[in-house]
Amino acid sequence: PFYTRETQDDSYFSAYADIGIHEDMLADTVRTNAYRLAILRCWEQIRGKVVVDVGAGTGILSLFCVQAGARKVYAIEASALAEETRKVVKANGMEGRIEVVHGRAEEVELPEKVDVIVSEWMGYSLLYESMLPSVIYVRDKWLKKGGLLLPSKATMYLAPITDAEVEDRLQFWEDIGTKYHVDMSALKPYAHRCITRKVQVKPVQMEDILATPAKVMTFDLTEVSAEDLSCVQGAFSFSCYGWSQMQGFATWFDVLFPSPKPVLLSTSPYSEDTHWMQSVMSLDESVQVTQDTRVNGVIKITPNSRNNRFLDMALKYSIDGREEVERLYPMDDCR
Amino acid sequence: PFYTRETQDDSYFSAYADIGIHEDMLADTVRTNAYRLAILRCWEQIRGKVVVDVGAGTGILSLFCVQAGARKVYAIEASALAEETRKVVKANGMEGRIEVVHGRAEEVELPEKVDVIVSEWMGYSLLYESMLPSVIYVRDKWLKKGGLLLPSKATMYLAPITDAEVEDRLQFWEDIGTKYHVDMSALKPYAHRCITRKVQVKPVQMEDILATPAKVMTFDLTEVSAEDLSCVQGAFSFSCYGWSQMQGFATWFDVLFPSPKPVLLSTSPYSEDTHWMQSVMSLDESVQVTQDTRVNGVIKITPNSRNNRFLDMALKYSIDGREEVERLYPMDDCR
Repeated sequence: PFYTRETQDDSYFSAYADIGIHEDMLADTVRTNAYRLAILRCWEQIRGKVVVDVGAGTGILSLFCVQAGARKVYAIEASALAEETRKVVKANGMEGRIEVVHGRAEEVELPEKVDVIVSEWMGYSLLYESMLPSVIYVRDKWLKKGGLLLPSKATMYLAPITDAEVEDRLQFWEDIGTKYHVDMSALKPYAHRCITRKVQVKPVQMEDILATPAKVMTFDLTEVSAEDLSCVQGAFSFSCYGWSQMQGFATWFDVLFPSPKPVLLSTSPYSEDTHWMQSVMSLDESVQVTQDTRVNGVIKITPNSRNNRFLDMALKYSIDGREEVERLYPMDDCR
Repeated sequence: PFYTRETQDDSYFSAYADIGIHEDMLADTVRTNAYRLAILRCWEQIRGKVVVDVGAGTGILSLFCVQAGARKVYAIEASALAEETRKVVKANGMEGRIEVVHGRAEEVELPEKVDVIVSEWMGYSLLYESMLPSVIYVRDKWLKKGGLLLPSKATMYLAPITDAEVEDRLQFWEDIGTKYHVDMSALKPYAHRCITRKVQVKPVQMEDILATPAKVMTFDLTEVSAEDLSCVQGAFSFSCYGWSQMQGFATWFDVLFPSPKPVLLSTSPYSEDTHWMQSVMSLDESVQVTQDTRVNGVIKITPNSRNNRFLDMALKYSIDGREEVERLYPMDDCR
């Protein structure tokens, strides 16, 4: 998913009723092709079986499951788009195979247990918009023992980065001032605070990564519980590649599909771009690092207490053995 | 101004506390240079005089007024940015000349009447975000009789257009379906409704304009009252240039600065691009027009009853003498 604006749950689902968000998700061919490939490669496990698609949207993953031979697909969609999904199903001649179920994953009743769960639940920085608990709920209630989850594993990564974009946005205030013959540089500290106050969803270039990324957390989706997700954390310990200005940390994720030949959907800066981009947490001040400079710490992620679709990302870190820094980065209104 | 998201007034001002919005406004050199030029050209009316800057933001217009010789500038700013504006003033050595007044234009007290009002109050399609009533309030309360308003006149334009972008976004559902070997074309009617439900703020190309634009309304800012703005309307009557698909109407505006050599800040598709772009209202179905096809109608704009920063744009029109069509286009959450 690719959630952008509103806050409460009704707004959350109404955002998915707008077509623009689905344009963006389907235009992300890395995402959609990874699902398509994984589903088709799992045809032996899907053929003749019952599938549930949690948060079906336009229904594209349900269509892929029928192409892979599913006997029946329950396409759960909470937003008003569900009516349109029915039309898509019909246009593809799959009314007999796909049943669109308009409702929330936690509230709908299915006529039978399922063999497979397919869902594209990942938000920015993996956990933004907190849709995974809905998938877990469906798994515990409707998935047969030993059933298949697509994807089945998710990993979050973290790495120290240099970040010219923040510098460029600050430099703007020098340049624009010169252009208009006034001095606007007094705004730079404030601009820095505005820009770095929250998690920034934006692209990170691989050459800006300053050390081998750490796997900070891994979720086995066949086992993880909603409670496990109420507070997740992971430690990291980096050894920098070389001389550079460290300006923040970036996170990204990948999810694994357990087909006979596994498919990995990666949102890494080392992989092809996706609509998820990366998520950046900037330091208050940049720090000079050099070869083998140690950067140690812990990241802790909790749903925001006022809106559980939002996240609070807490970082605790120490660079080069200096005093530990603690900072909270809200991840709320991501564009 | 360049307001994007939130709804109520606190959110309105908090949006202006974020630096990004000011980056976008100052990066719009058409906008900022028009104000700079107009202010400097009015130096004879500003020199030694008292100015109020309504919604000062970063303070840039206030700085221009001091450069033009103002004795005193009251820079009214309601958002938390006001503290930063003070720093900008100080960095420019203008503490003695510019007084930043942190508060709402309707609530602040100034120690004296003013000779000049400068304000950049224009929103998308001129009236979005409804800041003009605040300028009118300040004018009636604080401007000396015969004082100068910068700008002093605003005009809104309307024209019939062809609009390939909507077609392109609909075509997406054909193309993407082919790419994934499924049929997604059933979503096109829904996508059309989503895209065209509201006023779309986006660039219109001059070659997409199908008839000589109409001036649908003009505001003399020295005289217009807040009551006048509670419902504004204008009639139009077009005679199309030639054979084309008419897909909607576009609006834009210009404002005039009454300097000895007048300055016009135009957001027309015939002028240089600005951050205001143009505003588009799409027809439900495109209509074939040809040379001299008549398009007549009325546009009526009212603040939205639930949130007066938003607008309701009502169109009533008839193409080629056919049955009159009435439609309401909300202008709420503009990006």
